Amino acid sequence: MTKLGSIEQVERWDIFELTLDGPSDGNPYEEVFLAARFQYRNDKMEIEGFYDGEGSYRIRFMPDREGIWRYETISNVPELNGITGQWECTTPQPGNHGPVKVHNGYYFAYEDGTRYMPFGTTCYHWTHTGDEGHEEMTLKELAQSPFNKMRMCLLPTRDMRPPMVAFSGTSPEDADTSRFNPAFFQHLEKRILDLRNLGVEADLILFHPYDKQGGWGFNSLTREQDFHFLRYVIARLAAFRNVWWSLSNEYDFNKAKTVEDWDRLLQYVQKKDPYQRLRSIHNGTKMYERSSLFDFGKSWLTHQSIQHWDAELTTAWREAVRKPITIDEISYEGNISRRWGNITGLELVSRYWEGFTRGGFVAHGESFENTPTRAWISSGGKLYGESPERIRFLRTIMEEGPEDWIQKRREGEYALIYLGKYRPSYYELDLKPDRHYRVELIDIWEMSIQPLEGTFTGTSRIDLPSKPYKALRVQAV
Amino acid sequence: MTKLGSIEQVERWDIFELTLDGPSDGNPYEEVFLAARFQYRNDKMEIEGFYDGEGSYRIRFMPDREGIWRYETISNVPELNGITGQWECTTPQPGNHGPVKVHNGYYFAYEDGTRYMPFGTTCYHWTHTGDEGHEEMTLKELAQSPFNKMRMCLLPTRDMRPPMVAFSGTSPEDADTSRFNPAFFQHLEKRILDLRNLGVEADLILFHPYDKQGGWGFNSLTREQDFHFLRYVIARLAAFRNVWWSLSNEYDFNKAKTVEDWDRLLQYVQKKDPYQRLRSIHNGTKMYERSSLFDFGKSWLTHQSIQHWDAELTTAWREAVRKPITIDEISYEGNISRRWGNITGLELVSRYWEGFTRGGFVAHGESFENTPTRAWISSGGKLYGESPERIRFLRTIMEEGPEDWIQKRREGEYALIYLGKYRPSYYELDLKPDRHYRVELIDIWEMSIQPLEGTFTGTSRIDLPSKPYKALRVQAV
Repeated sequence: MTKLGSIEQVERWDIFELTLDGPSDGNPYEEVFLAARFQYRNDKMEIEGFYDGEGSYRIRFMPDREGIWRYETISNVPELNGITGQWECTTPQPGNHGPVKVHNGYYFAYEDGTRYMPFGTTCYHWTHTGDEGHEEMTLKELAQSPFNKMRMCLLPTRDMRPPMVAFSGTSPEDADTSRFNPAFFQHLEKRILDLRNLGVEADLILFHPYDKQGGWGFNSLTREQDFHFLRYVIARLAAFRNVWWSLSNEYDFNKAKTVEDWDRLLQYVQKKDPYQRLRSIHNGTKMYERSSLFDFGKSWLTHQSIQHWDAELTTAWREAVRKPITIDEISYEGNISRRWGNITGLELVSRYWEGFTRGGFVAHGESFENTPTRAWISSGGKLYGESPERIRFLRTIMEEGPEDWIQKRREGEYALIYLGKYRPSYYELDLKPDRHYRVELIDIWEMSIQPLEGTFTGTSRIDLPSKPYKALRVQAV
Repeated sequence: MTKLGSIEQVERWDIFELTLDGPSDGNPYEEVFLAARFQYRNDKMEIEGFYDGEGSYRIRFMPDREGIWRYETISNVPELNGITGQWECTTPQPGNHGPVKVHNGYYFAYEDGTRYMPFGTTCYHWTHTGDEGHEEMTLKELAQSPFNKMRMCLLPTRDMRPPMVAFSGTSPEDADTSRFNPAFFQHLEKRILDLRNLGVEADLILFHPYDKQGGWGFNSLTREQDFHFLRYVIARLAAFRNVWWSLSNEYDFNKAKTVEDWDRLLQYVQKKDPYQRLRSIHNGTKMYERSSLFDFGKSWLTHQSIQHWDAELTTAWREAVRKPITIDEISYEGNISRRWGNITGLELVSRYWEGFTRGGFVAHGESFENTPTRAWISSGGKLYGESPERIRFLRTIMEEGPEDWIQKRREGEYALIYLGKYRPSYYELDLKPDRHYRVELIDIWEMSIQPLEGTFTGTSRIDLPSKPYKALRVQAV
C-alpha cells in the first residue's frame, strides 16, 4: 500500500504489491487481464497481476535494483487500467541475499554473490494438511535441521482429502479448473514466506502424476488449462525470491503427457516468469537407463533435478551437461515397506557423501511409520532419523571448502575424497611435489575429523583403519 | 597304460590315456599330427593327441558311456600311425557325477543329473608360485571352504617371475610360443586333478590382458599362434571333466583384440573341444554400459560370465539371455588400495544374496594385505575374511531349495526374498489363497533362521525388525 504523504519503501528482492478493487462478476480468472509496467530509469518491464477473490486484484513485483520505481497498470477493465504510482526500493536487510541463481556452471549462489549449496529435503504435502499446528511443528523442525531447500507440491495426491486445493471447489473431485482458490494460495504464500524467513528455498512441484487414477483429471488437463494454471501460479508466486519451479515430479509416470508436452510447459514458464527462477523437471522410472532422465542440456532447464539411487553416476551427469546437479531423490531414510523409503541413515549419509564429493547436491527424505507423526516426506512434522545431524556435519565441511571443490581438486588445491563402503589399508594421494598439504581422516558416521600428523607432499601413502565410511580431506597449506 | 593279459579299465568320465613313443627332433608341437579314433559300438570320434616332451606322445580321452571302447591312431609319423587297442569303460565311483553342463536354461547339473550350483572363488595364479607347500595350503583351505569352482589363469601376469610358463623358455621374456613346456602342464594337470578330487570345477582362464606392457607378447599373438596354443591346451586338458573354458579375463582391456577376434577364438574352441566343456568370456570395463558385456546370446557361449558390482542387474541379464549367470567378479573382500579389492565381508555377502535371489551365481574373491600370506585372489594360501562362512550358510539354504527357485517363486511354491540394505517395518507377501506357507526370517550375517509362528496364506503381512540384511524364506506346506 502506498502511504499518504510519503513514499512506500520495499527492500531489494522483497515484494512490492499493488492491490486494486475491480469486478467480481463472471470469471475474473479468465476474463480480466491485468498487468503493470514497472519502470526503473529508462528500463521497463511488464508484470502480470492476478485475481485474489472478492473483487480484489493484485500485482506482485520483486525489484532487483535500488531507487525509485514507477508503474502504470494495463487492463481490459477500465477501472483497473492506467493507474500509476511510484515507490522506492531500498538496501536489503542483513540475511536477504536475493534469489538463488546458477553460478560457475555447476554451482549456485544468491544474487548478491553469497554462496548457496542446496541441502534439500522433501515434505510433499506439508501445506495440505489443514492442521496449522502441524505446519508450525514442521517449520520448527526445519529450523533445527541442516536443510535449506524444501520440495513441496502444489497439487494433492490420491487418497488425500485436502481441505482445499489450488482450484475452486470444495474437494479435488469437484474442482473447477477454470477458477482458482485464493484461500489456498494465500495460505501457501504464508508458508513460502515462513520458509524464506528460515533461509529455505521452496522448490515448488507444479505437477505430479499421483492423480486419483485420473479421477481428479489434474494429470490430463488440456494445454490451455495447463497454461491457465501456470500463468496464475507465476503471477502469484514468482515474486517470492525463494521460489524454484519443478515442473513435475516423476514426469515419466504421467502417461497423459509426452516429453514434447513437458518441453512446451517448461518453455511457457520460461517465457512468463519475469525473474527466471530456477527451473527443472524430475524423473521417475528406469533409472538404469540414462536415456530416461530428461535431457537437461535443453536451454529451458537451469539445473539437473535427478532421481537416482546411485550417486556414483554424478560424475557422468556432470560430464554430460554443464549445469548444477540436485539429486532430489536418492531413497529415504525410514522403514516403510516401499523400497524407496526404507534405507538406513548410514546408507543415506553414505549416498550424500558419494554425491557431494563427485560434485552433486544430494537431498534428504524420511519415511518412518509407527512413529508419533506421519512420514516427513509426505506431510512434514517431526524427524526421527539418524541422518540429519550427519548431513549437518557434511554441510559444515562443504561450507569450509571452496565453492568449486571439483575444479580445486584438479588444480591440486583441495580434495574431499570419499571411500564409501571400501576400506583400503592405505590410500595413495598424488599431491603436487612443490606444495605441502594437510590431511584429515573423516568418519562420516561418528562425525570425527582426525588431523594426520605433519604435512604431505608428492606421492603420499596415507595409512587407513580397516573400516568403511571414511573420507579424506586434503588442503594445500 | 594297457595291461598285458587283461583289459584296462577306466571309469566313466575319468581319463583314458594312451602314451606312445615318437620322434623328438625338430619341433614336434608343430610338425607332428597325432590323433586317435575312439569307437563305441558304431559311434566313432576323433581325439587329438599332444607332444609331452622327450619323445613322448599322449592321447587323452574322457569316455561318457560304459562298455568296450576301441581305438586306432592316426599320424603323419609312421611309428605313431595305425596303433590299435581296446579298453573298458566302467561304472563311475561314488562322487564322480561327470562333467557339469547347463541345465534347465539358467542352471547347471552334472551329467548324471546331480544338481550343481557354482559357489566360485578366484586364485588367478595359485599354480604359478613354484611353492608346492603354498599350493597344498591353498588346497587345504579350499577343502574347508564353501567353494566349488576356481577361476585360475594359464598365463602369468606382469611383475610376476613364474618359475615356468606354458610356453618353452626359461622365463616369460624368452618364451618360444611355437613350443610348449610339458613340465608346466604336467604340474597344472596335477592341480586340476587335486581340484577334481575336492569337487571343485577348474574355470581355466586361457588369455588375459595383464601382459607386461606387451613385453611378453601373449596379448597380441597372431591368430595362428592363438589357435596353436588353444589346440594344445584342448588336447591336454579337455579330457579333465572338471575343466571349464574362460576364453579371457577382462577381454575388453586387451587393445590388441576385437570382439570379432574373440568370437573366432571361441568358435575355434567350440569346434575343437570334443566334450563341449562350459565356455564363456569375462568382461572388464564400463560396467554401467550394458553393451560392454559380451553378447552372451551368441551360440558359442554356454553361460554369462559377468563382472559387475551391481548384483541387482541379474534380473535384467536373465531377461536378456536364457543362459546361466555366473557373476565371477563382484569386488573382493579385502583391504587393498584398489577399489575392486577392499569391500567388507558384509558387503560381499549382501551382493551374494542379491545375486542368488535374483537367479544368478555370485563368486568370491579375497584381497587382504598385511596378512601372513599374500592375497588369495592372486596366489591362494589362506583366507582371512568374514564372508566364507556366510557364503556356506547361503549355500546350505540354496541347496535346501528347489533347483529353479525363480520359477518356483512364480508358481507360488517357494520364495527366497532378500531385503538387502532396506529395512521395511513389514513385508507384504502375496501368497496363494488356497495354500499354506511356512515363513522364516533369515539374518544373512548372524546366520540365523527364525521360523515365524503358524502358517500364512493369501496376502500376509510379515512384521520385520528394523534392521537391514534380512531375508525371508517362504515355503509351501
